[in-house]
Amino acid sequence: MKVGHEEPIRLVGGVITVSSTRNRESDTSGRTIISIYDDHSIPLGHYEVVPDRIELIREELTSALACCNFVVLDGGTGLTHDDCTIEAVSPLLEKRIDGFGELFRMKSYDEIGTAAMLSRAIAGIIGGKAVFCIPGSTGAVKLAVESLIIPEIRHILTHANK
Amino acid sequence: MKVGHEEPIRLVGGVITVSSTRNRESDTSGRTIISIYDDHSIPLGHYEVVPDRIELIREELTSALACCNFVVLDGGTGLTHDDCTIEAVSPLLEKRIDGFGELFRMKSYDEIGTAAMLSRAIAGIIGGKAVFCIPGSTGAVKLAVESLIIPEIRHILTHANK
Amino acid sequence: MKVGHEEPIRLVGGVITVSSTRNRESDTSGRTIISIYDDHSIPLGHYEVVPDRIELIREELTSALACCNFVVLDGGTGLTHDDCTIEAVSPLLEKRIDGFGELFRMKSYDEIGTAAMLSRAIAGIIGGKAVFCIPGSTGAVKLAVESLIIPEIRHILTHANK
Amino acid sequence: MKVGHEEPIRLVGGVITVSSTRNRESDTSGRTIISIYDDHSIPLGHYEVVPDRIELIREELTSALACCNFVVLDGGTGLTHDDCTIEAVSPLLEKRIDGFGELFRMKSYDEIGTAAMLSRAIAGIIGGKAVFCIPGSTGAVKLAVESLIIPEIRHILTHANK
Amino acid sequence: MKVGHEEPIRLVGGVITVSSTRNRESDTSGRTIISIYDDHSIPLGHYEVVPDRIELIREELTSALACCNFVVLDGGTGLTHDDCTIEAVSPLLEKRIDGFGELFRMKSYDEIGTAAMLSRAIAGIIGGKAVFCIPGSTGAVKLAVESLIIPEIRHILTHANK
Amino acid sequence: MKVGHEEPIRLVGGVITVSSTRNRESDTSGRTIISIYDDHSIPLGHYEVVPDRIELIREELTSALACCNFVVLDGGTGLTHDDCTIEAVSPLLEKRIDGFGELFRMKSYDEIGTAAMLSRAIAGIIGGKAVFCIPGSTGAVKLAVESLIIPEIRHILTHANK
Repeated sequence: MKVGHEEPIRLVGGVITVSSTRNRESDTSGRTIISIYDDHSIPLGHYEVVPDRIELIREELTSALACCNFVVLDGGTGLTHDDCTIEAVSPLLEKRIDGFGELFRMKSYDEIGTAAMLSRAIAGIIGGKAVFCIPGSTGAVKLAVESLIIPEIRHILTHANK
Repeated sequence: MKVGHEEPIRLVGGVITVSSTRNRESDTSGRTIISIYDDHSIPLGHYEVVPDRIELIREELTSALACCNFVVLDGGTGLTHDDCTIEAVSPLLEKRIDGFGELFRMKSYDEIGTAAMLSRAIAGIIGGKAVFCIPGSTGAVKLAVESLIIPEIRHILTHANK
Repeated sequence: MKVGHEEPIRLVGGVITVSSTRNRESDTSGRTIISIYDDHSIPLGHYEVVPDRIELIREELTSALACCNFVVLDGGTGLTHDDCTIEAVSPLLEKRIDGFGELFRMKSYDEIGTAAMLSRAIAGIIGGKAVFCIPGSTGAVKLAVESLIIPEIRHILTHANK
Repeated sequence: MKVGHEEPIRLVGGVITVSSTRNRESDTSGRTIISIYDDHSIPLGHYEVVPDRIELIREELTSALACCNFVVLDGGTGLTHDDCTIEAVSPLLEKRIDGFGELFRMKSYDEIGTAAMLSRAIAGIIGGKAVFCIPGSTGAVKLAVESLIIPEIRHILTHANK
Repeated sequence: MKVGHEEPIRLVGGVITVSSTRNRESDTSGRTIISIYDDHSIPLGHYEVVPDRIELIREELTSALACCNFVVLDGGTGLTHDDCTIEAVSPLLEKRIDGFGELFRMKSYDEIGTAAMLSRAIAGIIGGKAVFCIPGSTGAVKLAVESLIIPEIRHILTHANK
Repeated sequence: MKVGHEEPIRLVGGVITVSSTRNRESDTSGRTIISIYDDHSIPLGHYEVVPDRIELIREELTSALACCNFVVLDGGTGLTHDDCTIEAVSPLLEKRIDGFGELFRMKSYDEIGTAAMLSRAIAGIIGGKAVFCIPGSTGAVKLAVESLIIPEIRHILTHANK
């Protein structure tokens, strides 16, 4: 019997796929994240596909944060003018976790070499909850969610709510 | 009979009072704005009182923007550490309307003299909709909404949606 | 007889009209500025019409600054997503002259009332040269160039090159 | 006997002249400010002349804020590369009072016309104390300190320490 | 006959050495980059040496971007007040590629140990073209251009122009 | 005998522990840093414990920089709303050394795995002097000061004062 321990944090995860071409049916990356949540018995609090528009991304993120304690946005992190996930989320982060993007690219480098430098990814805290923006490829999604987010999410949320 | 004219914009206004001490009953400023909307036959799309916390203000604003084409936030614009309405809204503005705050203070100056310089107020565009942050005093609210926002709101929305 | 005085500054002015619909023929505002320069015997060092794209505006401004000591950009200052003159020029300014936009709106207010608040205008210094961004309407152009820029340009350049 | 009133704020003012050519003897503007403080029976808590270097200005401001509840920095607000008072102070302000610079230029305009647009001036709050940056000319100093800062300083400090 | 394949991107590279002491003759780093381009049959579209001044760096970069699809700026990335390449280029980047600087330092670390942390380097996209700022030492130039930029430049340009 | 060599830089180190709960007696991390300085015969120029408040951190840093050529701030780098060391120091840095935080996390990763991503750490230059912000745990302090700061501090100061 545990004594004197804090209640463990109950995770509820959100998924927002940012894409102007995909829908819920064709959203392989989004479903990959949901299935990883499932493998770890993390209930899904919010799931949606939104097009690449700053105000729609922010609106969706706000809805997701109302019922999840962490949210992963996948897609819209590329280098074209249309890609705006990072632009939408970045100003909302109260604290940035710079190490997330770095570690993600360091691990990508082991898999795909110098092409890893193109992966744009950020993480941070909004109102005590954690938000991650990652590229929309299945490989990126697996690496980020399985190797980094899931192992550290309780740790991050504990630190953000001391 | 007007021919070849665009449909006039149908206004729906939102009101968010930012205050950690007031509630809907004691929210004189909020009700002042609502009654001005009423005088101009502008339907109220969203009304709430939220405490001075960045993430709650943003969440409320997002809800308001989902059903209004302009939103006025009153209160939380002062000089203490707690005041955070401008900090919450400012990074979300896609275009700033610097002239709003300036004109508001210029007109305040005629009423209250140099004390006008303390009035912090901003305006801007989010997703083709207009957002205004103004001080929470009844005088400020009347001046801003009656003399500036109502007379120019159609003009602003037309320009933001060309 | 004054001795030991500096040579008066020889002005060379530039004009860049930012518009995705106008060309040199239909560019009334641009030609209005050129004709004001002419009235004040200021040689025109650079004139071009460029579409609303950040990198093209910057490229044109750089060319203009190579042969002018002050440049006026007109147009592209509105509230739609496409308008990007201010976004293009703002990060390049080494010193901002906030008073220019303010004074421009204050004077606009005398002409057009509260609608003046919508006029976005900025000015600043790049490499000892002055850059002004103003709305593209003929009225705005006349007000800004004739009443503010021409009367103060020597003063500004002197201050920027002490 | 005062009943139910707060103790009035005891003002202690600071003066920092930013100039690479002046010293305490030749610092007419600094002494003008001190003499205005004196006329209003405001004790001088800190006075120094520092050259135009960001880190020295910040260091001096920190010392001044340790023993004053408001500080006026005069000079170093011009348009040359060397002028850096605004660059030094701006990132330190926890809340900006945009209306101060605006009102200062509006009043300057009545005295000197369109040349007022060149006056760069900012104000804001650091740790519940007020900081003002104004141009170093005697005219500017008189206008800013006598007509704006002295009349509103108690008001500002009350608002910043509610 | 082309089948389902895009035309491969034709690279044209630019080189700008930022230095107040070097000239074209003594610019070893610049010539090292040019010779690496040559080894990979990449035509040189623009080459110049410019002193450490923000506006001159920007002017040169604009010229280079007019005729190249990627530009490497070497030098001016150090820690003194004069070093300003990163300050000149950073605000112009429409999208930053944070992974470039990280990967560059990670690889430097393998060569020179903890001293790698001092290497400041950035990359990003301007108008669909790629810009890299790297230190001016021959070692840094070789590492960055040969191991990172050349292997990934087509990949970057493809992603930036989808 | 070496001739014509510059005098080696005489190091004087500062330590500021940011904590609202610790004092000088309970400040294990601060004393760890001091003892590392001692092992390397680096005199201690300034030591203090300050609570998590932006203006107090800045004030203390300014005092420390007056008598040290490098300063380590430990603590206050976490993810809660109260943590503000990075927010206090970041705007004061004239040049950022992004590689410091990266390398610190890369080395942490070897020790503690993916939890390293949570370590927020920054470094940069103020007035030719070096400032480091690191987490307040004893492990973090040892890693950062012993493996990164001490080995590179002369190198950094030489580069910042060329």
